Amino acid sequence: MTRWDETFDVIVVGAGFAGLTAAIEARNAGARVVVLEKMKAPGGNSIISDGGVAAAGTPLQKQHGIEDSPELFYNDMLQAGLGLNHPGLLRVLTQNAAEAFRWSEEYLGVEYMDRVDRFGGHSVNRCYAAAGITGATIIRAMLKKIKELGIPLRKSTCLEKIIFDGERVTGLSVREGYNYKDPEAGTIKNLQADSGVIVTTGGFGADVAFRAVQDPRLTGKIDTTNKIFATGEALVEAMRLGAAPVQLSHIQLGAWTSPDEKGFGSGPLFADYIGFLYGIIVHPDTGKRFVNEQADRKVLGDAILSVGRPSVCISDHGAVEHSGWDISRALKKKVVKTFETVEGLAGHYGLPADALSQTITEFNRAVASGVDVEYGRPILHDSMPIKRPPFYAMRLWPKVHYTMGGLQINEEARVIDLDHRPIPGLYAAGEVTGGVHGACRLGSCAITDCLVFGRIAGKNAAG
Amino acid sequence: MTRWDETFDVIVVGAGFAGLTAAIEARNAGARVVVLEKMKAPGGNSIISDGGVAAAGTPLQKQHGIEDSPELFYNDMLQAGLGLNHPGLLRVLTQNAAEAFRWSEEYLGVEYMDRVDRFGGHSVNRCYAAAGITGATIIRAMLKKIKELGIPLRKSTCLEKIIFDGERVTGLSVREGYNYKDPEAGTIKNLQADSGVIVTTGGFGADVAFRAVQDPRLTGKIDTTNKIFATGEALVEAMRLGAAPVQLSHIQLGAWTSPDEKGFGSGPLFADYIGFLYGIIVHPDTGKRFVNEQADRKVLGDAILSVGRPSVCISDHGAVEHSGWDISRALKKKVVKTFETVEGLAGHYGLPADALSQTITEFNRAVASGVDVEYGRPILHDSMPIKRPPFYAMRLWPKVHYTMGGLQINEEARVIDLDHRPIPGLYAAGEVTGGVHGACRLGSCAITDCLVFGRIAGKNAAG
Repeated sequence: MTRWDETFDVIVVGAGFAGLTAAIEARNAGARVVVLEKMKAPGGNSIISDGGVAAAGTPLQKQHGIEDSPELFYNDMLQAGLGLNHPGLLRVLTQNAAEAFRWSEEYLGVEYMDRVDRFGGHSVNRCYAAAGITGATIIRAMLKKIKELGIPLRKSTCLEKIIFDGERVTGLSVREGYNYKDPEAGTIKNLQADSGVIVTTGGFGADVAFRAVQDPRLTGKIDTTNKIFATGEALVEAMRLGAAPVQLSHIQLGAWTSPDEKGFGSGPLFADYIGFLYGIIVHPDTGKRFVNEQADRKVLGDAILSVGRPSVCISDHGAVEHSGWDISRALKKKVVKTFETVEGLAGHYGLPADALSQTITEFNRAVASGVDVEYGRPILHDSMPIKRPPFYAMRLWPKVHYTMGGLQINEEARVIDLDHRPIPGLYAAGEVTGGVHGACRLGSCAITDCLVFGRIAGKNAAG
Repeated sequence: MTRWDETFDVIVVGAGFAGLTAAIEARNAGARVVVLEKMKAPGGNSIISDGGVAAAGTPLQKQHGIEDSPELFYNDMLQAGLGLNHPGLLRVLTQNAAEAFRWSEEYLGVEYMDRVDRFGGHSVNRCYAAAGITGATIIRAMLKKIKELGIPLRKSTCLEKIIFDGERVTGLSVREGYNYKDPEAGTIKNLQADSGVIVTTGGFGADVAFRAVQDPRLTGKIDTTNKIFATGEALVEAMRLGAAPVQLSHIQLGAWTSPDEKGFGSGPLFADYIGFLYGIIVHPDTGKRFVNEQADRKVLGDAILSVGRPSVCISDHGAVEHSGWDISRALKKKVVKTFETVEGLAGHYGLPADALSQTITEFNRAVASGVDVEYGRPILHDSMPIKRPPFYAMRLWPKVHYTMGGLQINEEARVIDLDHRPIPGLYAAGEVTGGVHGACRLGSCAITDCLVFGRIAGKNAAG
């Protein structure tokens, strides 16, 4: 028999988008709830995200004259996911996204910008940006609601073990006073969950040992855009209990990152919004292009990684000016550099100058002709040749961005075991789960996932 | 305390290529060995395979004037595997393949044909065909050796549970008198393994529920080339014990199979050796091509599956004659059909006749010009237009062929747990393991995998 130190109805593990959402819904369903967060501050990776939410069939889309439907959204995510998405989960996400978005706006009071964007892979504009283009806007609103509802938030409290009495999950062993620099610090307490435990601990993008088993390319030589504590211990604890893992080897790389700065950094704004749209990516040995620069994240990331060392993304002043984006931070940090001549640029990066000049000439010819025969890149209506100095360049090297795989859940956010049955008392939502996104997650669908399945987990765990 | 019914040094679970190899090596290392086989006869999927073994640097290659090396072999498998292969395991396989092949020939007495073939993805000829082009030739030699060595082979004996004493695997609970039609039949016995248990139970290609969690496209509507008992129960038992799964969602589809016959069947000989080389694959709605017919298994299988219903593979009499292959069995079974006219063919399969004629005209033009602009297919030196009746056609629908993912093992064939440590006393080899082949297995590398890691597991488990 476990000796319990405290008793709740619902214990939520993790204080990111999914966890805070689940806690709010469980509380509103009448449960005594506690939220555990292993770090000193809540927010996890959610708080450093761009705060983009995708949803189909919203009033904001109507205002902007955009026609969309959950079915179209479903098809877009399924195509990006290479058909590996769990159909039932994908249906739940796409059909409940608009209502979850409305809930975040009206009930939580999240402020969104008056615009509807379209990120790669979405066939219409359906992405909404939280004010300030940051997830912090959403986390702040959630924390305010948590406080209003009187839900305790225990920081520096880490899951050690999920307690199972032979029939159901009854609670957790946790370490209070957790410090990632000294894993033995703090004290162990047993917290009882009369109704349910909800695991919302995020992905394992920063867990080098765990991710390298599933994708051996992703050794410690590959950085991550995640915070360093995006590790897999809660996922592993659930697996030890017999939870089925889903698609763990589908790990998303950011293709727009630079090896010349840590984490997400300032370079992606240049690479993703200017370089890949108007410029080129060249091989460090040959100075030649080797990929359609507008391919999706998966194709681009795999191609750049397969070169074995950083490639160079090149654009010109015309494109930077035309784009309207302010890349001064990347320039100041010297992640993006400027050169008066192509020769100077080639010299700096050790590229063969003649080959690079020829590559640019051929690219400019493709732009003029409207067809990129060799790499099949679509030539945009506002494409332009690379010719106006200064020339801008940035080294590219992928970083681990998101882990599509994780715990198998059903449409009620219940964790499923290796015999295909729900584990009584155990729920999960967000990046720690797998199957919703299949082989490749589309931009701005992660927060939607957290909102939709966080709400479902919270309601169901409350019983 | 477990009450043991019998005691051995090494228990091998599964009597296919990997299991029989492991048993022979464990016996030769001095261990008391038993082999368990859940079915009534040994051989598993191995016995219905084509008996092809890949190895680099063999005397047979030298005789045929073929230059090859383990490094080249490594690079070929890594490229096919999309870089996801575990490097250490891949190195062990490629460096020990030639010696394992020699062992099978000289020690086991397996008879191979005097030819060295090259299957898709191998950059040189390095594939050896067992006499009769069947795995049964190899299994027969192994069973003969097992008998010579006095190793007991227990048929109709199924693994129920792996027994772990808190420190190491000490044995197994098994069901004697197992009958897959009545899983409760037979009696439970506990078999002690003083030295080690070796799991060589093959893949889970026929386990619809398990595979559909990892790849939801692979429902019961998709057949398999495997025997019906290629299910995941031993893999799951090891996972319950904390064994780490690797890349479970990488499941190989055969793209050359027909929905008009069960299992592997007779159609693949036409599709893979004639249709894909000289003919075309057309979409059932449009009558147009939609894929490079010479793409690898993964690309082809995914493309054909994404259509949602069977495509049609078409070739002509010139190609059939030129190929030299005898496809009479496929014709007799009506899996491949012949038509005097393109219109007749179109009518039979419900294809738009005009569009199909145009597709063939365009394809013939590509063959004549030597470039297939639209689908990037290489035009072989002996390519020929589709024009000489009768026209041959076969419906294509992928079948599950091989599961690349499975238990994580290290270079000693020890099973690794979720904390990245070997589980004492537990070994695995062959298709039940993951990581060697990465995202996509090359043809004729599965038997090599079984021979190399079966030998290692057997030697190490003997202690």
